[in-house]
Amino acid sequence: MDNTDVAKEAAAKEALKYARSGYVIGVGTGSTAMVFLRELHRLIINGVINNVLLVPTSTETEIEIVRLGLANLLRYPWQVDRIDVAVDSADEVDRRKNLIKGGGAALTREKIIDYWAREFIVIIDESKVFDSIPSKHPIPIEVIPFAWSIVKARLEELGGTAELRFGSGKRGPVVTDNGNYIIDYMPRAVVNIEDLERTIKELPGVVEVGIFNGRRVSRVIIGKADGSVITMD
Amino acid sequence: MDNTDVAKEAAAKEALKYARSGYVIGVGTGSTAMVFLRELHRLIINGVINNVLLVPTSTETEIEIVRLGLANLLRYPWQVDRIDVAVDSADEVDRRKNLIKGGGAALTREKIIDYWAREFIVIIDESKVFDSIPSKHPIPIEVIPFAWSIVKARLEELGGTAELRFGSGKRGPVVTDNGNYIIDYMPRAVVNIEDLERTIKELPGVVEVGIFNGRRVSRVIIGKADGSVITMD
Repeated sequence: MDNTDVAKEAAAKEALKYARSGYVIGVGTGSTAMVFLRELHRLIINGVINNVLLVPTSTETEIEIVRLGLANLLRYPWQVDRIDVAVDSADEVDRRKNLIKGGGAALTREKIIDYWAREFIVIIDESKVFDSIPSKHPIPIEVIPFAWSIVKARLEELGGTAELRFGSGKRGPVVTDNGNYIIDYMPRAVVNIEDLERTIKELPGVVEVGIFNGRRVSRVIIGKADGSVITMD
Repeated sequence: MDNTDVAKEAAAKEALKYARSGYVIGVGTGSTAMVFLRELHRLIINGVINNVLLVPTSTETEIEIVRLGLANLLRYPWQVDRIDVAVDSADEVDRRKNLIKGGGAALTREKIIDYWAREFIVIIDESKVFDSIPSKHPIPIEVIPFAWSIVKARLEELGGTAELRFGSGKRGPVVTDNGNYIIDYMPRAVVNIEDLERTIKELPGVVEVGIFNGRRVSRVIIGKADGSVITMD
């Protein structure tokens, strides 16, 4: 395991403390969230945790739950009355727990599940922490296909660059789990990330914005290369 | 023609004054917008207006443009660099030009095109004017299918009733042109329609809200049963 893997595993294992028997658990998307899912799977098959239900935040995670032999625990939002805890990863996190998410194009289902959860736990390795965001990763924005060129132009008017995301594994634009496109937007300068989230979400044709408000995040667990963790509450 | 038809035709004909040769025209959805399209068609084939392009706000309108023999003028947003004028109808209008739209489930494409247009003209008959909105018609809300039960619960928490819309012509829920569902929400009381629009749009899983802000409306043309019109600027 390289240092990043050690860090991801440390964060994922720490998050297991918040996954209790009887819980409805929202399962995030991305490599760190997948480490969490596999560790959770181990506890479930060993009977350490029982009577849980798993609500995935993407078809990617949904398929992994099935592959692990946990299809009997798989549930969709309309099959449950609550999410007790959601555990998800992030592309970037600032000191106020604001997040950039959606590198894997799953931002909309992630925000639906993560914001609905009574506790929303973010697990990351330490390379994801930045003083201000977005830093390295542009902001993913899910758009109705009909509106892609209009939203792209509107974002460029706000300042910065906006690019329609093209797929690995397919020609043409990435199509999300909800049948939409992704525009990656890197603003020229960000004064206030909360205002920017609202401004973008209000554009007609925008389905969801990959900015998650820190006030909606219960805690961020940061795994380090030495296997230790730091928690931001 | 009954009184309502006279009123719709009066409004639609008045709106033709804003459709000029050389314009890119956004064409709305609904019975009054269809009267406008047919009147526009007459002017085009008679050579009174020429060199226009038509961008539809729904597949319903798109198909009507094709049926009228105007497919050569049909354009999608990414084929044009602007909309000069959009002419659309509404379910309810208040004295500040705020609108309730989406009875025909086309609210998202309508808002995309109508808000993008340099001039946004609303044509209605006088039965659509109310002191406060929503009055008779609930607020249509387009939602990602994955989130329907969560958004419904969130709206009920805001107060009032929220119902998933079921289709005429099909079993199961109405599916929009964008592959989503519609929830019809009637709030118990509305203090501020602008705040309500923002609150609903910020719910994860909400694609668009059928509240259109009066500040985005250039003018409302109200047709009356005697064939006269009143314009709110």
